[in-house]
Amino acid sequence: MTNQREMKLGAFFMVPGHHVAAWRHPNSEINSLQQLSLYKKLATTAERGLFDMIFFADGYALNEQLDTAVSQSVAVRPDPLVLLSALAAVTEKIGLTATVSTTFNEPFHVARKFASLDHISGGRAAWNVVTSSRLAEARNFNQEEHLQHTLRYERAEEFVEVAKKLWDSWEDDALILNKERAEFAAPSKVHAIYHKGTHFSVQGPLNVSRPVQGHPVVVQAGSSESGKELAAKTAEVIFTAWQTLEEAQSFYRDIKQRLTKYGRSANQLKIMPGVFPIIGKTEKEAREKQQYLRELIPEKVGVGLLSALINVDLSPYSVDGPLPSLPEVTEINGAKSRFQLIKDLAEREHLTIKQLYGRIAGARGHREIFGTASQIADQMQEWFENGAADGFNVMPPFLPDGLEDFVDQVIPELQERGLFRTEYTGSTLREHLELERPISQYAKPKVQKKNVQ
Amino acid sequence: MTNQREMKLGAFFMVPGHHVAAWRHPNSEINSLQQLSLYKKLATTAERGLFDMIFFADGYALNEQLDTAVSQSVAVRPDPLVLLSALAAVTEKIGLTATVSTTFNEPFHVARKFASLDHISGGRAAWNVVTSSRLAEARNFNQEEHLQHTLRYERAEEFVEVAKKLWDSWEDDALILNKERAEFAAPSKVHAIYHKGTHFSVQGPLNVSRPVQGHPVVVQAGSSESGKELAAKTAEVIFTAWQTLEEAQSFYRDIKQRLTKYGRSANQLKIMPGVFPIIGKTEKEAREKQQYLRELIPEKVGVGLLSALINVDLSPYSVDGPLPSLPEVTEINGAKSRFQLIKDLAEREHLTIKQLYGRIAGARGHREIFGTASQIADQMQEWFENGAADGFNVMPPFLPDGLEDFVDQVIPELQERGLFRTEYTGSTLREHLELERPISQYAKPKVQKKNVQ
Repeated sequence: MTNQREMKLGAFFMVPGHHVAAWRHPNSEINSLQQLSLYKKLATTAERGLFDMIFFADGYALNEQLDTAVSQSVAVRPDPLVLLSALAAVTEKIGLTATVSTTFNEPFHVARKFASLDHISGGRAAWNVVTSSRLAEARNFNQEEHLQHTLRYERAEEFVEVAKKLWDSWEDDALILNKERAEFAAPSKVHAIYHKGTHFSVQGPLNVSRPVQGHPVVVQAGSSESGKELAAKTAEVIFTAWQTLEEAQSFYRDIKQRLTKYGRSANQLKIMPGVFPIIGKTEKEAREKQQYLRELIPEKVGVGLLSALINVDLSPYSVDGPLPSLPEVTEINGAKSRFQLIKDLAEREHLTIKQLYGRIAGARGHREIFGTASQIADQMQEWFENGAADGFNVMPPFLPDGLEDFVDQVIPELQERGLFRTEYTGSTLREHLELERPISQYAKPKVQKKNVQ
Repeated sequence: MTNQREMKLGAFFMVPGHHVAAWRHPNSEINSLQQLSLYKKLATTAERGLFDMIFFADGYALNEQLDTAVSQSVAVRPDPLVLLSALAAVTEKIGLTATVSTTFNEPFHVARKFASLDHISGGRAAWNVVTSSRLAEARNFNQEEHLQHTLRYERAEEFVEVAKKLWDSWEDDALILNKERAEFAAPSKVHAIYHKGTHFSVQGPLNVSRPVQGHPVVVQAGSSESGKELAAKTAEVIFTAWQTLEEAQSFYRDIKQRLTKYGRSANQLKIMPGVFPIIGKTEKEAREKQQYLRELIPEKVGVGLLSALINVDLSPYSVDGPLPSLPEVTEINGAKSRFQLIKDLAEREHLTIKQLYGRIAGARGHREIFGTASQIADQMQEWFENGAADGFNVMPPFLPDGLEDFVDQVIPELQERGLFRTEYTGSTLREHLELERPISQYAKPKVQKKNVQ
């Protein structure tokens, strides 16, 4: 236990790295993209670094531009819950966060899978709640168009509400397990939820008892207006993307203030912006690494990625010219906050399309920090101590090297400054993140003891 | 390699045992029902016994009778894909079979999860395709009634068809992984599937490359007319429940004959009836174990289970009297074959309700075999050598003891008779089961080599 406030750190795994050209790096383990050996190495390395959690993003389709998507960029992505379940068996302490969309799933399945993962991992599961906005995803689920932004968030909110009811449907002390008296569980403490809403009608109860953590930790990543409201109401961690201290501070204040509306306190929601660290023994080496990766980006991939991020086809335009004039953010039915961020960046720094994709193709809108371990720590500390972050989601440019460098060089630097733990003091993710364990909404304030027949 | 035909064996895990009162057995590990430690012990024991695969059933709701379901019987069941993914990390050779229903799922998710499991396990995944027939399940997925039997099977058939297209959407040699030339994959070998059917519209391709096994092994368990047709068309393993040699032989012949209609040969589908072995050092000890377990069944549980199995509420009737007159099987919208089996058993042996639930509460309609290891082996050998089975799905009455007894006593007996392997000769489940690896339906007989830009 320490009195000093400590950073929360996530290790965001995108294999073989977050940089869009990472797979071309000589050290990337391109042959193991779908094999457990690579993920096991990454997870145990992150656990050695005492990270709060590992984190997987997800998506339910290839990019729209099929040819480019498969010809020059990593197009395979194993299911994150399958990966995390396997990793639960080979790790001890680290949190396990999987992205699962609310748009094309059912709350019963999702609540049950996360409850199961929470049980088998001894309380280390977290769910990153997202909505699916890509047309290619809709087309894999019987739809010709994707759901409109507001509707997606309305559905997401109800989805999380149902999941929480299902997690609560078994009270903590519902299991009796008395062989002699033939009492398995107390029926009075197992509740049908009878949820009837706009999007879902779910009777319950769940067929898994209350998760070790009460609820698996709820993570959220949208930063649009609806995204922020959903987060303030339901999330316990926000992953977010900001380029400047001022933007991050403004977002941080905004979110923490919204919490009061829902009767929540500031420390019930941790804000963790993404950082994309390029670490060198010297600043020059870091800069060279950065440049080396940028040069590996095939032009079609850079343009395609940028097009996908802003939902505008940029292929007709010269890569050496500026972005064409873009629609207003209100006209966009996609990832609104990411769109605004990229538009602002291009205008602020007068970037050509090629410069812009060089800038965002690695971190995809997240903050690129580079330098020596000490300089990386400085940049993290600045945000952490100035009301911009409770911690960071670390996005290594390529793996496993980028993660190993962070663990071996940056973590000790943060520990020396008293900014990060030197051992795990808890065993659940909630304990790592200093989040309270929620009480079941079905638990009566004072439980009447009675004999179950 | 051996010339003698060898049994295929599945280890069917229902914790803490298949017997409905197993949890009350003094040796059952009732505190670990949702913990990895128990499942890991079971999986490594089964692997030590050289089983072809482990197998998990599934269901998406508690029993209809909530009070009885939770008060006196095991009501928790972690998600099987979460469990198997974790077990993939702690086993090396054994196949991993999970039940996933086609009624309340989406083919894209299911195909992707099994493809992911197949990759991380090095080719050991199998999918037991079922449909969901219980009202309580429908009510957890926005429905007031469950789908009519024929429609469920029609949906299941299309579901499997879509999954196979998705598994095939990446040809085996689609991944190029050439860093230097920036060639990740060959677009000409990654195919959108553009499936448009009655129940599903799925564009594809999958975002996971072709599974190690081509397709994860497809298992099927229904034995109704629609179930048998679906199996003959799509399945590679059938789990089934028969009480007598004659019934099992008749089913075996029926299924193998149906295969020709779909251009398939007899060895492309393995028929594995369930067996529920009660093993004793002597026959008397086995009989005592059987009686001991029957006495542990609470009356309400026995009646409830029997009611659920035949979809008729038996609670108004005396347990010491016979079954009431039952509807004809054609009027049943449930598990038709199980209904018929129980009805026949009651009539054939003139059983009271209590005797009947004593008989079926353990094996739930599967064949109870008991005796010494040698007697157990005799009973398996009889079916195996007389056209009734290609192997068995072994359902230990309680765990882990029942599995350990089987591995330590029955397996050596089968090996001595030359009926079972003495080591794993392959590393994928298809190799264990001697099933061919399917060719992608999108692979051209002769592939034109061309350069990918």
